[in-house]
Order: sequence, then structure tokens, then C-alpha cells
Amino acid sequence: MGNTFGKIYRLTTFGESHGEAIGGIIDGCPAGLELDFNYIQNKLDKRSPGQSSITTQRKEADKVKFLSGIFDGKTTGTSIGFIIDNTDAKSKDYSHLKDVFRPSHADFTYQKKYGIRDYRGGGRSSARETACRVVAGAIADQILKKIGVYVIAYVSAVGNVKLNTLYNKLDLSLINKNIVKCPDNECAIKMIEEINNIQSKGDTIGGEITVIAKGVPVGWGEPIFDKLHADIGKAMLSVNAVHAFKYGFEGVDISSCNGSVVNDILINKDGSTNSNYSGGIQGGISNGNDIYCEVSFKPVATIMQKQNTINNIGNIVDLPAKGRHDACVVPRAVPILESMMSLVLIDNYLISKTNKL
Amino acid sequence: MGNTFGKIYRLTTFGESHGEAIGGIIDGCPAGLELDFNYIQNKLDKRSPGQSSITTQRKEADKVKFLSGIFDGKTTGTSIGFIIDNTDAKSKDYSHLKDVFRPSHADFTYQKKYGIRDYRGGGRSSARETACRVVAGAIADQILKKIGVYVIAYVSAVGNVKLNTLYNKLDLSLINKNIVKCPDNECAIKMIEEINNIQSKGDTIGGEITVIAKGVPVGWGEPIFDKLHADIGKAMLSVNAVHAFKYGFEGVDISSCNGSVVNDILINKDGSTNSNYSGGIQGGISNGNDIYCEVSFKPVATIMQKQNTINNIGNIVDLPAKGRHDACVVPRAVPILESMMSLVLIDNYLISKTNKL
Amino acid sequence: MGNTFGKIYRLTTFGESHGEAIGGIIDGCPAGLELDFNYIQNKLDKRSPGQSSITTQRKEADKVKFLSGIFDGKTTGTSIGFIIDNTDAKSKDYSHLKDVFRPSHADFTYQKKYGIRDYRGGGRSSARETACRVVAGAIADQILKKIGVYVIAYVSAVGNVKLNTLYNKLDLSLINKNIVKCPDNECAIKMIEEINNIQSKGDTIGGEITVIAKGVPVGWGEPIFDKLHADIGKAMLSVNAVHAFKYGFEGVDISSCNGSVVNDILINKDGSTNSNYSGGIQGGISNGNDIYCEVSFKPVATIMQKQNTINNIGNIVDLPAKGRHDACVVPRAVPILESMMSLVLIDNYLISKTNKL
Amino acid sequence: MGNTFGKIYRLTTFGESHGEAIGGIIDGCPAGLELDFNYIQNKLDKRSPGQSSITTQRKEADKVKFLSGIFDGKTTGTSIGFIIDNTDAKSKDYSHLKDVFRPSHADFTYQKKYGIRDYRGGGRSSARETACRVVAGAIADQILKKIGVYVIAYVSAVGNVKLNTLYNKLDLSLINKNIVKCPDNECAIKMIEEINNIQSKGDTIGGEITVIAKGVPVGWGEPIFDKLHADIGKAMLSVNAVHAFKYGFEGVDISSCNGSVVNDILINKDGSTNSNYSGGIQGGISNGNDIYCEVSFKPVATIMQKQNTINNIGNIVDLPAKGRHDACVVPRAVPILESMMSLVLIDNYLISKTNKL
Repeated sequence: MGNTFGKIYRLTTFGESHGEAIGGIIDGCPAGLELDFNYIQNKLDKRSPGQSSITTQRKEADKVKFLSGIFDGKTTGTSIGFIIDNTDAKSKDYSHLKDVFRPSHADFTYQKKYGIRDYRGGGRSSARETACRVVAGAIADQILKKIGVYVIAYVSAVGNVKLNTLYNKLDLSLINKNIVKCPDNECAIKMIEEINNIQSKGDTIGGEITVIAKGVPVGWGEPIFDKLHADIGKAMLSVNAVHAFKYGFEGVDISSCNGSVVNDILINKDGSTNSNYSGGIQGGISNGNDIYCEVSFKPVATIMQKQNTINNIGNIVDLPAKGRHDACVVPRAVPILESMMSLVLIDNYLISKTNKL
Repeated sequence: MGNTFGKIYRLTTFGESHGEAIGGIIDGCPAGLELDFNYIQNKLDKRSPGQSSITTQRKEADKVKFLSGIFDGKTTGTSIGFIIDNTDAKSKDYSHLKDVFRPSHADFTYQKKYGIRDYRGGGRSSARETACRVVAGAIADQILKKIGVYVIAYVSAVGNVKLNTLYNKLDLSLINKNIVKCPDNECAIKMIEEINNIQSKGDTIGGEITVIAKGVPVGWGEPIFDKLHADIGKAMLSVNAVHAFKYGFEGVDISSCNGSVVNDILINKDGSTNSNYSGGIQGGISNGNDIYCEVSFKPVATIMQKQNTINNIGNIVDLPAKGRHDACVVPRAVPILESMMSLVLIDNYLISKTNKL
Repeated sequence: MGNTFGKIYRLTTFGESHGEAIGGIIDGCPAGLELDFNYIQNKLDKRSPGQSSITTQRKEADKVKFLSGIFDGKTTGTSIGFIIDNTDAKSKDYSHLKDVFRPSHADFTYQKKYGIRDYRGGGRSSARETACRVVAGAIADQILKKIGVYVIAYVSAVGNVKLNTLYNKLDLSLINKNIVKCPDNECAIKMIEEINNIQSKGDTIGGEITVIAKGVPVGWGEPIFDKLHADIGKAMLSVNAVHAFKYGFEGVDISSCNGSVVNDILINKDGSTNSNYSGGIQGGISNGNDIYCEVSFKPVATIMQKQNTINNIGNIVDLPAKGRHDACVVPRAVPILESMMSLVLIDNYLISKTNKL
Repeated sequence: MGNTFGKIYRLTTFGESHGEAIGGIIDGCPAGLELDFNYIQNKLDKRSPGQSSITTQRKEADKVKFLSGIFDGKTTGTSIGFIIDNTDAKSKDYSHLKDVFRPSHADFTYQKKYGIRDYRGGGRSSARETACRVVAGAIADQILKKIGVYVIAYVSAVGNVKLNTLYNKLDLSLINKNIVKCPDNECAIKMIEEINNIQSKGDTIGGEITVIAKGVPVGWGEPIFDKLHADIGKAMLSVNAVHAFKYGFEGVDISSCNGSVVNDILINKDGSTNSNYSGGIQGGISNGNDIYCEVSFKPVATIMQKQNTINNIGNIVDLPAKGRHDACVVPRAVPILESMMSLVLIDNYLISKTNKL
């Protein structure tokens, strides 16, 4: 339970941070898609550790190996199995964590829930698992592209360094021009400084990512419990360290606004509106305008400072500052959130084929 | 698709705002629960229209009638069917909406998605549907109560009138002492003023609700895609007009904080921590501390002011100011959000029974 | 759990034999279907009790009332709620069953599983529940008809009176010409005699139904676990008193045949074969030929003869011969099995829309 | 869609006959199970090709490699990923099948459904996929064993050589004493003769397997659509070449029997009955008696005789007699059916934990 995402295009994943491999199965991928394997690997590389001076120095090649569901370079409609080997799993690094529960980590909750846990690098609770989401998202992207749908995300805040410009006033082609994945170079420089500063103190910092989907036609999303934004919200909240989600806003705090101000007035029969406070979704169904949302991350819980905590017999102990971790995860989380958006969209696209006669 | 919530304790609903009745089926409710029917009806009454001067004057008794799954006052383990008649469905009121799409409503998206829509009062997209959620939540509450779990919510903002005190400093017994469901009477008075003011202008206003769950034991929530907060987030975002969700924060903006500041230090083997920035959840699993979250609502889209919009042939037309609606939905949404929290918790409680040998 | 059937076109049902009403919710029905309500009611009438001299004399009008999901006579894509009142629920008839467990009934298993049961008329375990399946199946029929798919069933055995002609040699237009629903009038007369004979002894008898689907295009059914025949088999086995299922056979016992004899040789690129031992399905996917299967029923467990059994404290007691029941259920089960076949087909039709780019 | 089995204990599989590997993910396996890896491998060996003179000579070691979800030899509650390499995948053998559709195979249906297929050895439609079911079933067995539940199966017919003794009169310890897996040595000898005879003609033959579950407590199975025997039936029918299923019978044809004869009279408050025509299930719920069923297999479609068929442009062509296949699959199918039974039981066991307060 809990290791599967999606209703029709379904991703199921497995793997611990320091086991032999992680991997997954994609069920329900339509047949006949000629895969661009470079695209998939490139997306994985954007998530991979060790890619720049501001990311963890763990070295993982993160090469995905597909085992099934593809023939002559095309998807066959059968389930796509894939694995990514763990090549830099230095298990010895983690022996000091066997009997202690790190603060704000999942050590304690896994131990109590299951009565056992793989303590090496957080085991299943490690964000390493998200590499599998990127694989599935990168395949989804290729189907979405065929129907003109395009997902893109960028870092919109690192700590108090916030990018205050709305997405539609930015040059999104700049996102990958810097290591922090912020499309405003001036702001990016400040963000990098902030991360370096935090890192030098052995501390960590949270941040924010904006995710956008363009080209989504009118009619995706199943109303009532599976509203499109509810599915997107769940997708984002399922990513490690995410603690808040909002969609639509045009830069204002909508919950303190008046209806007469934030109603989006329809101006064309294609669904165009003179504003997009609704973030491209009405009643849980896409309305043809851009979908956009903001996703907030807590700071990484592993800090390079000594902390107190308890051990497995309830004694308070010192936790040494040790391990390899990002001071700020948001730059590496960009492809993860893009993938989660793509997974929600591809699924709702496929479902939408069954909505009417 | 989309009309069912939950994995084991599953609610499926039906019904349009102005059809004959709304209703639902609860599958997976454990057998042997002696139902307190007054509790269910009281909870429905808290959601019902016409309950006070600040709610819509539509009159619906909202009397729930159970048709199955209960015998001698107890749940039998079989599916529980129930209906709530629509008694004040003045369909004539809505004939002017047949051919126009109201701004920031689901009229346009339903029409395009399905090629047909019940335009009377918003049809299926009306928040009237949420009454069914309250029924299912009120039954879930009674099971949760037996294991010491207790869900409560209150209005924490109406427009710019915000209650800045954290939930654990408030006297929650005051929530139902005023019509706006805010546990701080002074703040409540300002909120009511704000609503009256907005209503007198024919406008609407958004707001915020804080939802709390106390007594949740360690170990609920399925990690990876079905993290407990991801399930809660989806549940909340599926409620009409909700556009943002965050959990845990202790009153600060966590995404701009340092790990050294917002890490929750474990101080006891029961999982107690010296702070609760994590909102009672670590790695998607409850950690024994209070679960709390904030849910933000857009202003109601129906305003009593003339607006432009388009009609079904794409012409721009005037939309007259007409209908019966709340100027602010948050007071009536309190029992709805409580119910959604209870639905997530009961489901995860039942699943947790299967986690270990 | 267990009260929902289907993946996209999903039926969820509720209701006990002697409660106020039974009913259901259909989710995922495509929008835009103009419903033929007479067709639905006629199909219900074929299942209803009291329709002829060989069926139980319980009188139930079985009038279905739709509460949602339909507007101006057409499906709207939202969930379709419906109820069927229990009008002849003589609860007093069943008070003698409160403390005893009838042989080969579900009294004992429900009591032990749930710790409580509605003993009136078998409660939820009564075949009365299947009326809801007929409603959902009769709507599915109307969509299937639009794409040229047609489901039909008939009684092929009552006890030892067996119709040995294969379905494709019969005049299926004769099925409803007699009260036993057998398309061979001579055989039908013998079946009716057999039922009358059994009934006069206060006994019951099993039987067999053949179910056929014509016009199913190549490509329905999801291989591996959800093979089309596995879905059909489960659907049939979920009907009260069914204990065996087989599909394809051309009148022989395939498991004792040689491959060289029962291989279906492809003769045309539309998938036509020179025989149809495979029953229209290869590898779990429809191959364009007729789908057909045989479904076997146990005799009804309620007999009008005194039996021993145990009561709720484990004592052996006499069970008086009492109640209103069919001596043979297969004539009334014909529309139920047709409906189950239609539910499987509509669901696989909708899923098939997502199989390839 | 279709590659997942189960509701709580969920197996998802991938892999083609001649791809690099097959494998799967088990989600929902309870934590804390100390695994007996030899038991798993032994069960796989019973399914593996080349194990005796009457099975295909394809050589596959079928060594399962676990990649996650296990720590210190115990299940951790997280998803269990595993792979089995394809070591004897002689792809060249199958090049002659690229453009032809073999009779009674899934070549044609996969091609039409997906527009593409991996034609090597049947690709995904190969029974090689069932090895993954055995892995998951062998883990389920170990949990079931802890609560006294025991699944066993044997070959009860090979063509016309039928074992007519009911399972409870047989010495089941003899099943593995012969290569045909029949617990009656005399009958086994005839079955082996029959297979050798058929094989020498280049032909194939069907057969039958009896599957038994002992020790299942009262109360497993979700009534209505997910009746225990409906779940079992679907499980069995999802196995390659299975075309019929029946449960309960005590050696008679129940559908031609009278209720007064085949009713199982309750004789003890533990649910014991003086006969077991119901096969251990009443109303879809286990009643504490042995569960048993018969599963029938078609003959293997690949025969070593020349056949006609059509190619991908619709021309009739000769299909040469070529390939490596079993003349009769039932001996190797024994562990597969045991595994499917175990998968159904473990799932219903876990669900049963949520049935009552």
C-alpha cells in the first residue's frame, strides 16, 4: 500500500537508499510511443546528486535500465520495468544510526509502524526513491508533448530569497542557465549565496518551487474527490520535505480577496479569461488556461551540527553531525515536481478519453 | 471516476444541487458500531444553509435517511446507503443560467468536459454534495473516538481578519459559541463584521480554516505516494473553493527557516518532541503529536454584482446579480473539513491494522 | 470493501433484502447517453419475483428511481444514484431465523465475520441485491449497443434436463417465448416440468446458463491478471449460487482434448477462425469472435423440507420448512448474468480507449 | 492496467519471455516476517522448465534476486522488488514468428490491441510471467503458515486420464513423489504415459488441477462482488491456458442436484458441516471447512505439427512445427495455482482485520 501512484498510468516503485537498486513498474503506458532515452536520462541527471557545488557529494550515476515493455525502441503497452543501481551506497557511513532516531526524520515513525527499519541512509524514506518518479514522469512528458502539453518548474524561493515575479513575466528558458534553477539570474545569484552561506554553517534551508503546465486542454480532471488540483496537490505533497501547496493566485493572497476582484471573467469561447486567479482549473477540471502552483519545502532535517535526540531505549543521546546531504533540496527537486505534475496530467488525459460517448 | 474517497473505508457519493436527492454509500465501515444518530444530524446541521444570519438563506432540512448497513442501531459491516432529500430546490431560480457560463464557476468546464450539464444551482459542482461527506465523517468520528482520536476545526481567517494565535494556545471549547466558528470571541466579532460588510456590498470573501487531530497514535499513514499529509492535503483540496493547504508550521513560514531551528527534537520514547513544526507527521507517518493544518478558501464566485461573461455561443453577455449564496463559506465549511480529516484518519487507521505481523 | 464492481464504469451497491430500499451508484458512465428507461425497467422485470408460476411469489414491483446523473433524459457524466424500494418486505416472516443458522446459507458466515447480521430474508446476502446489477447492466447495454455489441443469455440446463445444442445452432429469438428462458421450446417444456416436479416435493434444483456476447471488437481485455475471461469469470462467480464457470468449448471437454484438435486456425485478417474453441478470447484479449461461457448454479439452499441445523449457542435444532423462494433460480438469473457480462464489457471497452497512442 | 493483483497484499509484475529479465513488486506485505529463501526457491524450481522429461527443455535457472523490502532477512513493510533474469532467451529461435500469428496464441490479439508486439517467445503473453506469481505466493505462504493456513494442489487429470478420488481420500504427501504431481502413483504412471504418447506425436494435451486450502478460519472473503470464490476464480482464470473453474462439489455435478441432497448441514458451532458441497465458502465468506476447487487447462497451443495460419498482411501461410514447449502444462502449473490461491487468501486475511470493531 502506498507505493503506487495513478489510476490508469500507474507507477509502482521499490527500493531503499542503500539497497542494491531502486526501480519501478509503469503500468498503463499507451503502446506505440517511440522513446527518447536521452530525454529520460537528462531529466534524471537534473535530479542526481553531485551535479554541482550546491548539491550533496554522494555520487550516483543514476543510469536507468529498462527491462521490459519496450520493443524496437517503442512502448508495447505491457508493463515497463526498470531499475537504477545504487552504486555509491556506503553503508558503513550509517552504522551510527542503527539505534538512534534522527530529529525530524522518519526513523522513529518507520520503527514504530513496522517494528523494523533499514536505517542505512533513511532506507525507504530517503528521497532517493524519487528518481523512479522522474523516470515515469519523463516518459509521460513524451506523450504529453505529442498533444501540446508542456510542464516546467523552477525555484522561486530559497529561504528568504524570494523571486516575486509571476511565472508569466519570466523568461523560462533561463531556468537551466544556473545551478539553482531560477529563471532570474540576479535572484539566482542571491539564492546560491544563501545556500553557500547556510552550508558553511552546517545548516540547511527550505524553499519553494513553482510548477507550470501549459497547453492542457479544457476538460481534464475528475470532479468531486479527484479534482485536478487535489490530485496535483497530493502528488506534490507526497514528495519528501514538501509541507505546503497552493495553486492559482496571480501573486496575491486569494483567501483575503473579494470575489469581485479575483473572479476570472470569461472572454472567449475557448475558455480564455482576463485573469487566471483560478490557476487553470475550475471545479476541479482544467479550463484551458495555464495551470500553475507553488510548492513549499521544509529545510532538510540532516544538519551538520550536533543535536540531541533519543535512542531506541528512550535515552537522550548526542547525534553527531555526519553524513552527505544537500543544504537546500529545491534545485534538485525541480525535475521531481515536474514529473509529479506530468504523472497527474497523463493519468487525467487517459481518463478523459472515457468521459463522453 | 472521482466520486469515491478512501481505500478501505470508502465513501461514494451522488447527487446534484437541484435533483431529487443527494446521497452516498459507505463501504468498509467496521461492524458493531452503535451509532449516535443525533451526533450525525448535529454535524450536518453545522454545515446546513440558513443556520444563521451570515449563511445563505436557502432552506434545507438536510435530514439524512439511512437505507442499509445498520441493524438494531448498529453497523453490520455491509454497505451503508443513505440519502438526503433536496427539499428547497427552486429550479426556476436558475433558468437564466442555462446558456451562460458564470465566471470562476465550473459551468464552462463541465459543459466542455461532458458536452452536457445540469445548470440548476451548479448541479454536481455545487458544494451541496459535501453534506454526504459530513455523514460519512460523522460515522468515522464515532470509531475514532473509541480509540481516543478527536478531530476539531475552526475558522482562523476571514479575509484580512486573521486569528494569529496558534491552535494550542486557544480555548477550542469556544468554537461553537459564535456563528463564525472562531474560538476567539473578539476576533469572531471582527470576522462577522467583515462578512456583514462584504455581504452588504454584494461581494464575497475568502478565508482560512485550521484543522486539528489529537490522539492519533504513532504509525498511521502509508509512506511514499500515500503519505498521511498527502492524503489529508488531497482530502482538503477536494472541497469546493479550497486553493491552498499547509501542515505543520508553529506559526512560522517553514520554507524560509533553517533546519537547526525547525527540527523537532525527540525527547521521549513515546515520540514526544520539544516542538511540532512537523505537524505530527514524519516521513508521511503520524508520530504521535498533534496533527494540524491550515486550509485556505477562495471567495465564493457568485457575487451579487453584475458581471460580464460569455454564453454558450461565445458572445459576451451581462450576468445579472441573482441567487442565494454565502458571502463567506468558511463557517459552514468547518464540519466539512473535520469530516475530510476523519475520513483520512479512519482509512489509515484501518490500513494500519495490516502493517505488521 | 466488496460492494464495488469495475474499474472505470463502477457500480457500488447497498441494501438488504428487508430494509427500506436497495440501490446503487454508477460512477464513470460516459456523458451524453440518451437513456431508454423502458429498456431498464423491462430488464428488471425479467429478474423480478412473482413473474411466473415457477418463480417465488414474493411481490416486488422493482421500480427503479434515478436520483442523479441524468438531465433532460441524458447521462451527464456525473455519478448516477438510484434506489429500488422494498415494498413486500414482510419482516415478520423471518423472526424464526433470528437465532438459527440455515444450512448452506450465509447466516453463519456473516454472523462470525461481522459479529452481527440482519437475519431478515438473508439481509445483504440475499440475491435481491442483484437487481442493482441489472440496472447498471441495462445502462451499459445501451452504450454497447451503439458500438454493435450485444449480450444475450439463456437457460441451458435445469437439473439433468440439459440443452445440448451449441448456442450458434439455436434460434435465440425464442428465449423469452417461455417462462424458463430456454430457446428450445421442447427442452423448455421439460425444464418447466422438472421445476414443477421439484417444487411439489418442497425441494430445489440447480442449473446452467449460457451467456454470449456478439460484436465485441478485437482488443478488449487487459492481459496478465485482468484477462477478459478472468474478469468475466469473477463477475459470474460473484452472483449468488454460482459455483462454476467455463468459457469456450464448442461443446467438448477441452481439458481432455489435443492441441491439434482444438486450436482455432486463423483464416482472415479480421481475426476470423475456423472454429471458436477459445470462446472469442486469446491471451485474455477479445479476438473478434463470439464470446460465450457456461455458468453453473447450485440448487437454492432454502427448501420446503424440515432440516437440522445449529442455533447461535451451538445446539442442534430443527429448521421448519418456511419462506418464499424459487425452486430453481436460473430463469430469473438470466438478466443478472447478462448484466454482469455487460458490466465487464463496458469497463473493458472504456479501458481499451487508453491502450495506444 | 492489468499487471497488478490484490487489494492490500499487491503484486505488480513486468517482463517478457525473451527480454532481459522478469520481475515484480510486492506492496503491502506485513513487516517482521523472517523469510525462508529456500522455500521460495524450491517453489520456483517446481515451476521451472527443464525439471523433468515431461517438461520443456528450455533451461532457466529461475533464480530470484530480491532488491528491496527485506533487511536482516526480514520483511520491513516497504515494497519488495525482485527480478529473475532470462538466461536462456534464444531470441533467434523466434524470428520466424515476426510476421505470423500462431493459432490459439495471443499474437494476433496483442498486435491488434497495441499495434505492436514483442514476438519473441510470446513476449508478455508467455507463461514465463507466472514465475513472479510464485515468488509472491511463496512469501504469502509463509505468513499463512503462521496462522495455520496451508495451500496444496495436485494434478487431477491429464487428458482423459482422470483421478476420480476426492481430495480428502488421497494421501497428499505423495504429490511430489512423481514428475506429474499426482498423489495416486498408479494414476500418475498413466498420466506420464499419456504425456509421453502425446509428445511423441508432436501434439499437446489439456488437464486439470485440484487446489485445496486447509485451516482457513471462518470469515475471510468480502461478500457481494468480491466473494472469496469469485476472487479465487479470477485468480485461477488469470493463469495461462485455464479455461474453467469450479469450487465445491464432493465429486458430483452440483448444478443437477437437489437442495435436499447438497445442503451442508451445520453440526457444530465451529462451523463444521456433515458434508462440504459448498467447498468451504458460504455467501462468499469462508466457513471454516476446507476450500477446494478444480481448475481446467486447455492444451498448449504450440504443437509440433505443421498448421495453417495467417500472416500480418492477411495471407494464409504454413506455420512450421518449431519451438520448445511442454506437451502438457499441468505439472508445472501446480505451484502457480497454489500461489494464486495463497495470494487471494493473504489478501483476504489482511482485509479481514478491518471487518469489525
